[in-house]
Amino acid sequence: MPNPTAAMIVIGDEILSGRTRDSNMHHLAGQLTSVGIDLKEVRVVGDEHGTIIAAVQELARVYDSVFTSGGIGPTHDDITADCIAAAFGRDIDVRDDARALLAAHYEKSGSDLNAARLRMARIPEGAILIENPVSVAPGFQLENVYVMAGVPAVFEAMVASVLPTLTGGAPLISSTLRIERGEGDIAGPLGQVAKDHPLLAIGSYPFQKDGKYGAHVVIRGNDQSEIDVAVQKLQAAFP
Amino acid sequence: MPNPTAAMIVIGDEILSGRTRDSNMHHLAGQLTSVGIDLKEVRVVGDEHGTIIAAVQELARVYDSVFTSGGIGPTHDDITADCIAAAFGRDIDVRDDARALLAAHYEKSGSDLNAARLRMARIPEGAILIENPVSVAPGFQLENVYVMAGVPAVFEAMVASVLPTLTGGAPLISSTLRIERGEGDIAGPLGQVAKDHPLLAIGSYPFQKDGKYGAHVVIRGNDQSEIDVAVQKLQAAFP
Repeated sequence: MPNPTAAMIVIGDEILSGRTRDSNMHHLAGQLTSVGIDLKEVRVVGDEHGTIIAAVQELARVYDSVFTSGGIGPTHDDITADCIAAAFGRDIDVRDDARALLAAHYEKSGSDLNAARLRMARIPEGAILIENPVSVAPGFQLENVYVMAGVPAVFEAMVASVLPTLTGGAPLISSTLRIERGEGDIAGPLGQVAKDHPLLAIGSYPFQKDGKYGAHVVIRGNDQSEIDVAVQKLQAAFP
Repeated sequence: MPNPTAAMIVIGDEILSGRTRDSNMHHLAGQLTSVGIDLKEVRVVGDEHGTIIAAVQELARVYDSVFTSGGIGPTHDDITADCIAAAFGRDIDVRDDARALLAAHYEKSGSDLNAARLRMARIPEGAILIENPVSVAPGFQLENVYVMAGVPAVFEAMVASVLPTLTGGAPLISSTLRIERGEGDIAGPLGQVAKDHPLLAIGSYPFQKDGKYGAHVVIRGNDQSEIDVAVQKLQAAFP
């Protein structure tokens, strides 16, 4: 059976302007791979209603699950929750359980639960809250879409909250071979091994370091013994 | 006049599996912003013909230019050039000028210009070569799509080759204010300033460091004096 599939939407003008370097994509990719969910596509979009809604609708239809990062804070440019609600035709309003979480948190810290902070308790109708052990304001799941914060520490904590609830597939196994030959020398034998093992995904990632050319060849699949056979063939070809 | 728009397609299973952390998106974002081209969307896709072709066709239709990274090396998993040709219905074959570049390079380095390396001289009909001062094998431009290598050093060199040929817009000017208050305290006054200055793009990027909460507020626009007015309002609100 093929693994479940996933897509990610990274939301935020600051990524597209080059101001901020996204790290959430790399984190989620590794986490999903570890539980046997295939991340098939990532889109980075700006803080624009139409673009976010279209991406959510398209990807939620095509993939088993969709993960978003960014745009659920208290400021005017945080529009993700509204876009998710709109994408599924749901109402959105302050929800009592989310408000209670925030009220307790801000009372303890002596801050005011003002109108801006209350925006973080606005949850689309029918959504399930995602726990945020870092800064309390929750993410949420609506249908097959998981909506999480953009701040990396919070995003990673929310992913940790969500991951045990996901149904994974066979975790991908991989072996990596470092071959200190130009990729052009590796390509012929490598292509033959790839053709002989159509169930394996074989990738070649060139490097150039201290004047040496080479490639890391990564062999991925679900069957350790078949991976071992492919590795042995390559080791024989490049002793 | 609005700035020209752009999209990027990052191609490679290794990014989606979490094996490799992409850095080309962040580089391109900064470079395009510096010449007044608005990067509006980035897609990360795997090494699959159908997905790559669909993304190229859709984004090339919607945005003024599209930049791709990855998949133009000599190995069997490098399928980008073929996908670009297919996306525009063009033939693709080894081209004499690209072959000559590679032949000269490999003769100097004492390597064989074998069948695998010759794949890197396969260029879609009607494309313009993009210079690669790092490892010679060229990228290319077909219609409004710029096809570049995935290895960061090569990608960055190709971007440097291409950038002077692009028509930019008014470079975005930005000012950043560091405000050491919780984002929930900042949000009210900030939203008002954003409403008063609809031509400015105002973003709030929260941080939490050494127990301090705060946000970097970034004000972007084309008019320095308007940006200055907005900064002054925020400084007055958060002395």
